[in-house]
Amino acid sequence: MVPKVVFGAGSFNQLGTILAEKRKHEKPFVFLVDDVFENNAEFTTRVPSHESDLLIFVSSEEEPKTKQVDALVSQIKEMFEKGVSGVIGIGGGTILDLAKATSILLTNPGKAADYQGWDLVYKKAVYHVGVPTISGTGAEVSRTAVLTGPVRKLGINSDYTPFDQVILDPDLTETVPNNQWFYTGMDCFIHCVESLNGTFLNAFSESYGEKAYELCLEIFNDTKLSKTEARAKLMMASWHGGMSIAYSQVGVAHAMSYGLSYVLGTKHGIGNCIVFNQLEDYYPKDVSLFKEMVKKHRIDIPSGVCADCSETEINTMIDIALGLTPLWENALGEDWETKIDRETLYTLYRKM
Amino acid sequence: MVPKVVFGAGSFNQLGTILAEKRKHEKPFVFLVDDVFENNAEFTTRVPSHESDLLIFVSSEEEPKTKQVDALVSQIKEMFEKGVSGVIGIGGGTILDLAKATSILLTNPGKAADYQGWDLVYKKAVYHVGVPTISGTGAEVSRTAVLTGPVRKLGINSDYTPFDQVILDPDLTETVPNNQWFYTGMDCFIHCVESLNGTFLNAFSESYGEKAYELCLEIFNDTKLSKTEARAKLMMASWHGGMSIAYSQVGVAHAMSYGLSYVLGTKHGIGNCIVFNQLEDYYPKDVSLFKEMVKKHRIDIPSGVCADCSETEINTMIDIALGLTPLWENALGEDWETKIDRETLYTLYRKM
Repeated sequence: MVPKVVFGAGSFNQLGTILAEKRKHEKPFVFLVDDVFENNAEFTTRVPSHESDLLIFVSSEEEPKTKQVDALVSQIKEMFEKGVSGVIGIGGGTILDLAKATSILLTNPGKAADYQGWDLVYKKAVYHVGVPTISGTGAEVSRTAVLTGPVRKLGINSDYTPFDQVILDPDLTETVPNNQWFYTGMDCFIHCVESLNGTFLNAFSESYGEKAYELCLEIFNDTKLSKTEARAKLMMASWHGGMSIAYSQVGVAHAMSYGLSYVLGTKHGIGNCIVFNQLEDYYPKDVSLFKEMVKKHRIDIPSGVCADCSETEINTMIDIALGLTPLWENALGEDWETKIDRETLYTLYRKM
Repeated sequence: MVPKVVFGAGSFNQLGTILAEKRKHEKPFVFLVDDVFENNAEFTTRVPSHESDLLIFVSSEEEPKTKQVDALVSQIKEMFEKGVSGVIGIGGGTILDLAKATSILLTNPGKAADYQGWDLVYKKAVYHVGVPTISGTGAEVSRTAVLTGPVRKLGINSDYTPFDQVILDPDLTETVPNNQWFYTGMDCFIHCVESLNGTFLNAFSESYGEKAYELCLEIFNDTKLSKTEARAKLMMASWHGGMSIAYSQVGVAHAMSYGLSYVLGTKHGIGNCIVFNQLEDYYPKDVSLFKEMVKKHRIDIPSGVCADCSETEINTMIDIALGLTPLWENALGEDWETKIDRETLYTLYRKM
């Protein structure tokens, strides 16, 4: 788990002090910042980077890729022969996962794709800090860094993946557009539904999952909170949702969403929504709640995204989805293979 | 926060594997184990200590003391000139706090009393593991190690205090006697009441506090859970309650309970119950809920404990209680000194 966390509106201002303690002689920090902030001078002047540090604006238009991590690591190693003091990710799940993976690959040999899976990392990563600027992914707290690689979309799940320090400043999520706020919030809601309805559930995950689920409903279904309260509470929902998953698993929605995203590059939040919208058979109560919230917030859930897909593309989606054994085991039990088949997934994908 | 945690019935069996990774050449582990287990061979054979390790059974009859920590540290340093691989605390809050403080004093010079307060520790402690065998104190997750010193009862609050690893095995709490189960569970309930009603509350603490509070009511008020479920859920309530406090503060009950315990040596859990029982004016709804739960579980809350106290003793209690500024600030606000006086505390203590 993340050993250090600061929470509170304005707490982003503490980043400079926190990094000062960790700065090593002649070793700069690398800041990976979501490029939505690139022309936001008010924000960029608050990033406490020194002249010798490297600040890279990274697009989060696409899901993070193993080759992107490899390129970042090459660039950093080439620029800084003596190594770096740490990596700071400032952004949404894409940037946070890139920061986590980069910090691992700076100390572990080989390519990012070598570490996709469970517990394949054997050396401590460089010091890494996460600052989420959108809430819901749980990437700020999870022990995975989900990457699209040459053969699969799968996380680097390891004890060295979690951030050493996280700063939770709800004010940083103030400028998130409404649709994106909803999609990413629903990522958290869907996490929780999958965790709470899964066979891997224990009292640890359940207590975190229940709290996050409750907060999501308070924010998106009751809709009585002020915007400031909603920002703070969604940040905590994301945190607890991520903690719940740390000790359980996601399920059908995430498995199918990984397939969608592998083939079409669909972003994770919206991908989950597109998939979850079709999962009445698996999560009836919560899909119906989801549809109510979509209506309340006047959100567009894209449809027909698979209409133009070739048979090969749909088959790849199915391969990717079915390859995620732990997710299916959690959702449907040990005998999941007798409960789901390619035809069912085919029909579901074609409906999306 | 605690960076690594294992949860689950039977997870205590993983301790050996976890320690094997951390064992350094010629450096033994020190196990501090609650002496209620001393003659429980079924349990002691499961403690994965090697022949070269030191296993000490410690009484938890009394609250942990700074001089006890100093004595343990002297003994360990004398026995093991090359140092130790780590300290493992197996027991309730008393043992866990002793383990945390001992691990700090093994690397920091001076006496335990030198570090009572906030952020006075400047060197990393030796590796330390916590295994709670009773639920409610939150000591397994908190960044404090509460000790009674020569001049005060106060915690060693620091970034180095939290355990490096915690094992949460609900089965270990199976043999806790009913009264003790209740008193310690109420420690958690009272933490949450104080945190949720405090002025220091933020969305972080609130989300943890609400979940722990909810779980306490599910366990002690609804009383519909099986014993196995209740054990698992109380372990999580304790965890979340401790997390809530990590980012807020306790209040009137803890301040007064510290005074009681300093003078009379009253154990923390029962002390909190004795105090909370008299705090209708401060926490009306929750004191009434508390009294209902006391009735439901047929628990004896001792009365008349201060009846034979001298004026000097009561005055010392008041001094200790009023010395805990952050607790009063949290409970009553910045102008707490205008809202509470020695007479009020005197009357309350005499009623206990």
